[in-house]
Amino acid sequence: MSGKPLGEFALIGRYFDRGPARRALLGIGDDCALLESRGETLAIATDMLVGGRHVFDDVAPAALGHKALAVNLSDLAAMGAEPVAFTLALALPEADEAWLAGFSRGLFALADRAGCELIGGDTTRGPLNVCITVIGRVPPGGALRRDGAQPGDDLWVSGELGAAAFAVAERLAGRELPADDPARVRLDLPEPRLALGLGLRHLARAAIDVSDGLVGDVGHLLERSRLGARIDWPAVPQSARLRALPEAQRRSLVLAGGDDYELLFAAAPENRTAIAALGERLGLPLTRIGAFEAGDALRLVDERGRLLDWQGHAFDHFA
Amino acid sequence: MSGKPLGEFALIGRYFDRGPARRALLGIGDDCALLESRGETLAIATDMLVGGRHVFDDVAPAALGHKALAVNLSDLAAMGAEPVAFTLALALPEADEAWLAGFSRGLFALADRAGCELIGGDTTRGPLNVCITVIGRVPPGGALRRDGAQPGDDLWVSGELGAAAFAVAERLAGRELPADDPARVRLDLPEPRLALGLGLRHLARAAIDVSDGLVGDVGHLLERSRLGARIDWPAVPQSARLRALPEAQRRSLVLAGGDDYELLFAAAPENRTAIAALGERLGLPLTRIGAFEAGDALRLVDERGRLLDWQGHAFDHFA
Repeated sequence: MSGKPLGEFALIGRYFDRGPARRALLGIGDDCALLESRGETLAIATDMLVGGRHVFDDVAPAALGHKALAVNLSDLAAMGAEPVAFTLALALPEADEAWLAGFSRGLFALADRAGCELIGGDTTRGPLNVCITVIGRVPPGGALRRDGAQPGDDLWVSGELGAAAFAVAERLAGRELPADDPARVRLDLPEPRLALGLGLRHLARAAIDVSDGLVGDVGHLLERSRLGARIDWPAVPQSARLRALPEAQRRSLVLAGGDDYELLFAAAPENRTAIAALGERLGLPLTRIGAFEAGDALRLVDERGRLLDWQGHAFDHFA
Repeated sequence: MSGKPLGEFALIGRYFDRGPARRALLGIGDDCALLESRGETLAIATDMLVGGRHVFDDVAPAALGHKALAVNLSDLAAMGAEPVAFTLALALPEADEAWLAGFSRGLFALADRAGCELIGGDTTRGPLNVCITVIGRVPPGGALRRDGAQPGDDLWVSGELGAAAFAVAERLAGRELPADDPARVRLDLPEPRLALGLGLRHLARAAIDVSDGLVGDVGHLLERSRLGARIDWPAVPQSARLRALPEAQRRSLVLAGGDDYELLFAAAPENRTAIAALGERLGLPLTRIGAFEAGDALRLVDERGRLLDWQGHAFDHFA
């Protein structure tokens, strides 16, 4: 009612969130919805990529096919779900065969690797739009929801942050990185952390994937878990690509830049050794970057525990 | 490889159809995909509406919210599935609150009536695009697939055909019908035949909804069931709105006009009485309009069985 444009989350809340799910186990507000089906739990997520907004015109069709599915699989990973199947709805300005051949190649390469089958869809003419809905499964009660974190839990993140945001920033500044630059690969071909999600089923209490930016996504965990948290800025693993940048820019890219598709998760301190072992087994660094606290504040602190200021904010399509 | 633009069905076949489903019971090529989940079968369908193409600019947002869900529920109806839940992905040029209020009102009015819960989604900025994925359930083996028709089966259709196509034709000719004109209501607020689909589970052998046009959709049944069929043109129930039109135009609207969202189905002749009783119970006319035959030809005949010519073709987004 403020007169200023509604942000994405406010928009969802005002017009589409009708409170606790009735038929579903878990409705709007997490990485996936959860649907009970005779003793099995289905995890369902949907994501839409729009040409010109999420998709830069010079991104290879194969990369787009990969990414459109990857962002959905990342939602399954963040629930600890195993991929089963997906649907694809595609609007295209024209039926360009070279584009379609590349797109479907990138899409199916990832789908096959993830064991996720295309089971249906819709194609139509229109401005480029790719909408995928993915279905996975988790054992009953085994999903990594956003609302399970407890005070005293460690806050963990996988991999490194900031590379994808760096590639976006360079692109927007007119300095397109080559397609094989690691930051560009990170942006165009994100790797959904499916094996990590499965491994965390019995080790983590809550999880989310980093798509809106570290601060925004930690914020989603806090909101659902009704907690606060401390992020130890010096502990946050940053992409090597960011080393040469000024501190303010690094902080902005790491804290507010999205598109990394790493997993953020909450786990009890007694699971530290098991989580480290899981990271070893997967060849994926897992780093403790803070802790959950009572209250509702998100504090960013330096190596001596002093509060740090930062300018960033999470990505919001309508803000 | 002919150099001419690929149609929608050719496009799906060439780039996205990889043969029989592996993990799913039924993949691409029917109204819904079928997924086995511990003794229960899930039916899943997805449809995308694009602004300017499927959606005329002056259609009320509430009607759009209704229609976007209705076309998906119609796919469940055509499988004999009971609606459970849906996801919504929405691209909007701007977060217009009046638009969103109307859209969500129309959407939820139908969703509540159908017992179908919104469980998740995605909103983003971009050219208007509404993508809904719907999930329903059917008893194992109970789905009304497209491939179950047998030679000698009756071909049935519910309701009347042609009204929605008439409204489209008037609109394209610059003669917009008032919002309460029955033909316009039929186009803007189609009614998914869910109760009919459930009632047909044990009476029909195959079904499809009329979205591409009678001839095109009968053709889909024939292709999947590897059969031919005869359509008795004088028996085809036509909207009263078409009475004043020349025969050629009526034939084109009824045979090639889509958007009616009635059900077409195949049933054994011994079920005629039970099907008539079902129609009585639902207050929905059910009409025999022909029969399935061996071979692969679709014949349109007059009251004396003579072959009729027609110019129409099914709707194809890329043809």
